[in-house]
This record gives sequence, C-alpha cells and structure tokens, in this order.
Amino acid sequence: MSFNIPRGTQDILPGTVEKWQYIEQVTKDLCEQYQYKEIRTPMFEHTELFERGVGDTTDVVQKEMYSFQDRGKRSLTLRPEGTAGVVRSFVQHKMFGNANQPVKLFYQGPMFRYERPQAGRYRQFVQFGIEAIGSDDPSIDAEVISLAMELYKRLGLKEIKLVLNSLGDTASRVAHKEALIAHFEPRIDEFCSDCQTRLTKNPLRILDCKKDRDHELISTAPSLKDYLNEESSTYFNKLQHYLTVMGIDFELDPNLVRGLDYYNHTAFEIMSSAEGFGAITTLCGGGRYNGLTEELGGPNAPGIGFALSIERLLAALEAENIELPVEDSLVCYMVAMGDEAKDKIVELTFKARQQGLKVEMDFQNRKMKAQLKSADRLKAKYVAILGDNELADGNIMVKEMESGSQEMVSLDQFIEHLKQS
Amino acid sequence: MSFNIPRGTQDILPGTVEKWQYIEQVTKDLCEQYQYKEIRTPMFEHTELFERGVGDTTDVVQKEMYSFQDRGKRSLTLRPEGTAGVVRSFVQHKMFGNANQPVKLFYQGPMFRYERPQAGRYRQFVQFGIEAIGSDDPSIDAEVISLAMELYKRLGLKEIKLVLNSLGDTASRVAHKEALIAHFEPRIDEFCSDCQTRLTKNPLRILDCKKDRDHELISTAPSLKDYLNEESSTYFNKLQHYLTVMGIDFELDPNLVRGLDYYNHTAFEIMSSAEGFGAITTLCGGGRYNGLTEELGGPNAPGIGFALSIERLLAALEAENIELPVEDSLVCYMVAMGDEAKDKIVELTFKARQQGLKVEMDFQNRKMKAQLKSADRLKAKYVAILGDNELADGNIMVKEMESGSQEMVSLDQFIEHLKQS
Repeated sequence: MSFNIPRGTQDILPGTVEKWQYIEQVTKDLCEQYQYKEIRTPMFEHTELFERGVGDTTDVVQKEMYSFQDRGKRSLTLRPEGTAGVVRSFVQHKMFGNANQPVKLFYQGPMFRYERPQAGRYRQFVQFGIEAIGSDDPSIDAEVISLAMELYKRLGLKEIKLVLNSLGDTASRVAHKEALIAHFEPRIDEFCSDCQTRLTKNPLRILDCKKDRDHELISTAPSLKDYLNEESSTYFNKLQHYLTVMGIDFELDPNLVRGLDYYNHTAFEIMSSAEGFGAITTLCGGGRYNGLTEELGGPNAPGIGFALSIERLLAALEAENIELPVEDSLVCYMVAMGDEAKDKIVELTFKARQQGLKVEMDFQNRKMKAQLKSADRLKAKYVAILGDNELADGNIMVKEMESGSQEMVSLDQFIEHLKQS
Repeated sequence: MSFNIPRGTQDILPGTVEKWQYIEQVTKDLCEQYQYKEIRTPMFEHTELFERGVGDTTDVVQKEMYSFQDRGKRSLTLRPEGTAGVVRSFVQHKMFGNANQPVKLFYQGPMFRYERPQAGRYRQFVQFGIEAIGSDDPSIDAEVISLAMELYKRLGLKEIKLVLNSLGDTASRVAHKEALIAHFEPRIDEFCSDCQTRLTKNPLRILDCKKDRDHELISTAPSLKDYLNEESSTYFNKLQHYLTVMGIDFELDPNLVRGLDYYNHTAFEIMSSAEGFGAITTLCGGGRYNGLTEELGGPNAPGIGFALSIERLLAALEAENIELPVEDSLVCYMVAMGDEAKDKIVELTFKARQQGLKVEMDFQNRKMKAQLKSADRLKAKYVAILGDNELADGNIMVKEMESGSQEMVSLDQFIEHLKQS
C-alpha cells in the first residue's frame, strides 16, 4: 500500500523551501518598515462568514469552498481567502477602538479553493496579504499599492504592470448597476445560468464571467467610469496623484472588477508582463472594501487591502530567470574515528551548536572517507577529525576544506577556534 | 448579525504575535545549527494516511479527527499531527535515496484535533517538530532530544524535566504484549469498552487509558523494561550515555508510553515542573518509529522525532514569568501640515521605507497634536514636521523625541540624515 499527497496540493521540500523562507523574510521586513503587524486567524471559519464576507454570488463561495460539518454539526469552511477572517477578527476584538488608526495588518498562510489543478494553481496555496482598516484617505490606498510594488521590486521582478480602476461609491455603483441591468436584460437568455442569476443580484459579475466573456454585450456594456459621481472621481484622482508622487507607474483599466463582491472605490491588480508567463498573469489583486466591517456586525471602518499568491510570485521569478540569494553553508563537519572519539564528538557537536555554530556529524558509523564526502556535499568550511591518538593528546585535527591546510587544535580551544574563524 | 471565531480556535493578534515570531526565529536558527531543514506538507491528507500512520486504535484517530469528503468524494482529514505527513512525503519523494542520510527535517504549523476546548488546549494549535529519518544510531536519538532541550533553554525555561523510556524492539514488544494480555484477560470485563477492544489489538494502550487509570491491574501490570532483550537494552543504555556526555539530565519512567501507535525503542517527554502550570505538564513528546516508512509503502528507514505545541510553550513561559525580548520601535513619524506638505510626506515616507527605514505617517488628516500623540504611542525616535514654510525653504523640521532637541534638515538630505542616526 502506498500513500500520495492529496490532488492539487504540494509538499515544499528542502532545496525549495529556502526560497519561501527568503520571501517571507522580505515581506516581514517590508511590513515592519511600513508598520503592518502580523495577524493569524484560523484555517477555518464558520461558513456563513464567507457567504456574507466574500459574497454568495461569487464563484469562490458557490463552487470552490472546502466546507464540512464538524462533530458538533456546525458548518465550517477552510478559508478561501484572507480578508473575511481578518475583518471578522477586527470586529470581534473591537480593534476599531484601538488608539492607532488605521489598524494595519498583514497575514501569510495557506488558503484553500477546490479548483481544477493546473500549472501554478493549487487547491492549497499560500497568500501574503495586508489590510489597512479605519481610514478612507486615498494616501492609504497609495501606501497599500506601494507596498506590493516594493515587494516585487525587492525580489528583483522587472516586468511588472500595475492596473487601476475605481468601482466608485455606493451611489455611483447603484446608478451603474441600473444601467447594466437595462443593458443585459433584453438578451439575458443568451447568457449562462449563473449570469442570469447575477443579473438582478450583482450584474457587475457578468463582466467577469469566464463562460460569457466573448458575448458582444460584454464589450458594449456601460462603463462604470461614466457613472462615477464627483466624490468618487476626486478620490480616484487623488490616489493617482499620490502614486505619481511616489514615482509608481500605472495603467487604467475600466473593466477591472475583481472577483470578490465587497470592493468599492479602488480596485487594482499587479500583473507580470514577462514573456512565457502563461495565461494567468495576475500576481496580486486588491481594493477598497468600505462597508465590510458593518456587513460583519461592526461599526463603519473603511478598509483596503491586497492579497498575492506566493506560488504565482515564484512562477514570475522563474519567468524572469531570477535566482533568490539563498545560501546554505556549514561551519564544520565533525569526524570521529572510534567509540571513545565518538563520545567526544557528540559532546563537541552539541556544545558548538549551543554556541550558535552550524556543525554536523555522522550518525551512521560510516568510514572516514564517506564522512569526508558528506562534509564536501554540505559545503563545510572545516572538517574536524578526532582519532584515539588525538584524543589521548587532548587535541583535534582541523582541516580547512578549500585550502587543504590543517592544524592541530587543543580540544579545550576547539569551539573558540571555530567561532573565531 | 455578528460573526465569531470557531469554538476552540484563536486569533493571534499584534501584541502577542511578536512572541510567536520570536519563538519561530529561535527554532529556525536552532534547526540551522543542527542542520534540520524545513518541510511543509499540506494541512490535510487522505484519511487513510492517519489511520495507518498514527494508528486506528488511538484516541486521535477514533475521536478527534476533522475528516470530510471533498467535492470529488475523497475522504480528507485535517492533519492531527505532523509525523505521518512528513513520512508520507519522505516516501513519496524517495528521500531515502538522498546522498545525505539521515534526512533531517523540521516543520512548524497548525494541527487540528476535535477535543473539548480547555485552558491551553485548542482545536487548532501549532506544533513545531523535527524528524530524523535514516539512522538507528542512538547518537541521533540524543541529538533529537538535545535540540528540544536546547530550545527550552534558549527561551529561558528553567523548570524543565526530561523523562525517558524504552519501548524496545519488535521482539521485546511481542514478549511484553503477551504478558500484558495474560495479565488483563482474566478481568478485562472490569475495563471500559475501548480497553476491551485494545486487549488483543494493542494492550499497551490500556496503560494509557484515561478512564481505567485507577484500576489496580494498571499499577501491577508487567513492565516493559523486564521484557527488553539485550539489543534493546544496549540501545537504551547508549542513548543515556550520550545524553550524559552532553550534560543533559533525565529521569527514567517505565510507564511512559506516548499516545501514538508507531513508537518503538526511545520514547521521551519533556515536562514543565513550574508551580501552577496546571494538570497537563507535558510540553514535548517524541520517540523512535522504526517501521513507519514501511507501513507507508517505503523501504526500511528508521526514524525518530518529536513534536511540541507552541501554545503549551507560551503557557510554560508565563508560568515561569519569562518575558521574551520582543522589541517594537519606529525611527520616525512623519507629520504634514497642509495639502502640499502632505504630497511631500507621502513621497518621503515611501522613499524612507525603500531605504529600509521604519517610518509612519497619518492617514486621517488629523491635527498636529493628535499626530504627535501617535508618534509617542509608536515610540518614534524622531518626529519630522513639514509645513508650507519649511516646504518653501526646502527644509523639514526633525525633532528627537527623548531629548526634545530639534533641527532643520534639508529635504534632500532628510533620508540620509535618518539613516545616519
């Protein structure tokens, strides 16, 4: 009998995991500089949270959630995205009362969507995201976008494109929604059944439909930008102004809608324009979600955030042939010849590590030659060899691998010797 | 309508998350020094993996798993522990063929058990664990134990107790099992129904039963240590010898069994002996699992590992009143007076962060006084204040918070000025 990993998931193994660790360190440093603090919410939430917080007309909620009943018959769902849980936590822990506003949070961890597995798309994938809740000044929208752009820049990506749109405020959206209904209603029977449901519930979703994307009414649909009221236009212009001040380039795309229901005003995506990156070019998506805290039972606290997939980021790095500076090294490989020497090697290895040194020894009682091969493979800077003779003299032989030079070091001085070198 | 977190789970919020980050950094450094590499397996696996790898007579598998069917009708289970997934990955990716043996791995992440929530016990909890697979030399057992002990030491815990036992090899266990059956069989109807099932399947489990722990036959049961054959005794003595060489104290406890089915030879627990730590004192548990790779479809590759819960570790730190050295600071809080000054502050804030500086600004268009309060709360070292006058002169006012001293700095020099200070 053999066991395999569940379909659509992956193991991240040594040799690859170092890239993940590196990216996490960069995001953590970046978030510290930007003053975003980490939050960790559970892997699952009550199913209703996502129905309400993500929107029950979205593909994510309708088709892609891992929902199950626990032994207490509650319906739980593995989180398909991070914002709903963070905002639930913001409301539950009354963070709207914190002295420092807006509350600036980041998260990094697995998300789960039951999709057809394909290149670069997994059923368990990792998202890094940030949320700034408690301000509706366009400068915070610019900050959020700039953090994502800076992350990609620090990792070395060059072929990156920022695309912006405004979804307007509620009044603008109501006006646009009415125009959309009037546009699609006469010929709605030419659309898929999902779109027919969307027509009255959320006609904006129709523009995003994968099945109906080629229908002629899609391209001629009324554009939201013609329905933005003055307040929404001012907000959007101010955001563009701040991005310009920061020196961040962007394109406008009036068809950018985003897949989740709760966005308003700012919507943005960051895409890879690297050749051969494939059909799915979006690396990062985000936007403003004023009203979501109220939807989830809290007071008004306007928010904005983004999420990006680490798997997608790694694919983009690969498409641009970028090697992350991941190093792996060993200070010393410890070789014992004989049982008594081994006791001493066990002791020295432990003590060296207690001093913060990266050292390794053999655990298979192999011959010296095999141990030296290991030292080589592990890129050890030094090899320390202890036999019965050296032990009797209170010494250990230390050999520098690159130069081949060797010297006898007193056992008492050995760890200090390694620390100095 | 309001939404709450699922029962038995917790949010880890800013103010607390820094402790988690600190512990993760310590474990990561420690694993690097010990040459354990990170592995990340999925949050869920096929249910059969745990039935086979953890043991279908265990409480974990029988009562505590979050199992569910995915949309493709496969039975999946949120991982209740880390070893089964790691060993599954070891076999699936044929790591037994790696040049460096044993393969030394660590993991850190959420685990899931449907238990009654109580103080310090969660349904989603985080485990840090290591596995060394491919050696059955007692020196690797000593290394694994020493890593856990060193972790607790580095974090400052003092009231820590290591308890050891040997479960022997298969031959020893078969002899002991027969003795146990002979011991319990005549009066098995006085035991709970679970124990009656265990009698023939796995009588060792009876010693671990929470319901029958006070039955007189428990204390008089034949002890495994009287059934260890010579090979098993030699192995166990060697392990104790290596721990002594390392200077690690331990106690022997012949009743230490561990809750999972797959252990043999070495079993160990590390407990807190801090006063007021509560009834559950085990911080870390581990042991040897020769045979598990074969059980999961691979070749023979003897392994040993441990797992420890971060929640439990934090509780032990609290019981000993240990404060982790978690710092939080800000280099500069940026204050803008007026719209034009704000443009410049948006730009400078972004550029300072690009240079790796931790800076913050206001996103709510508040008065200067409120902004200075924020600077104070965030423990900013400096405040930089830009008004229309300074802007016209190409300067910015920089004030050191502690001393109150202030100076005018050229806008062009400002970021360099911050970097120098």
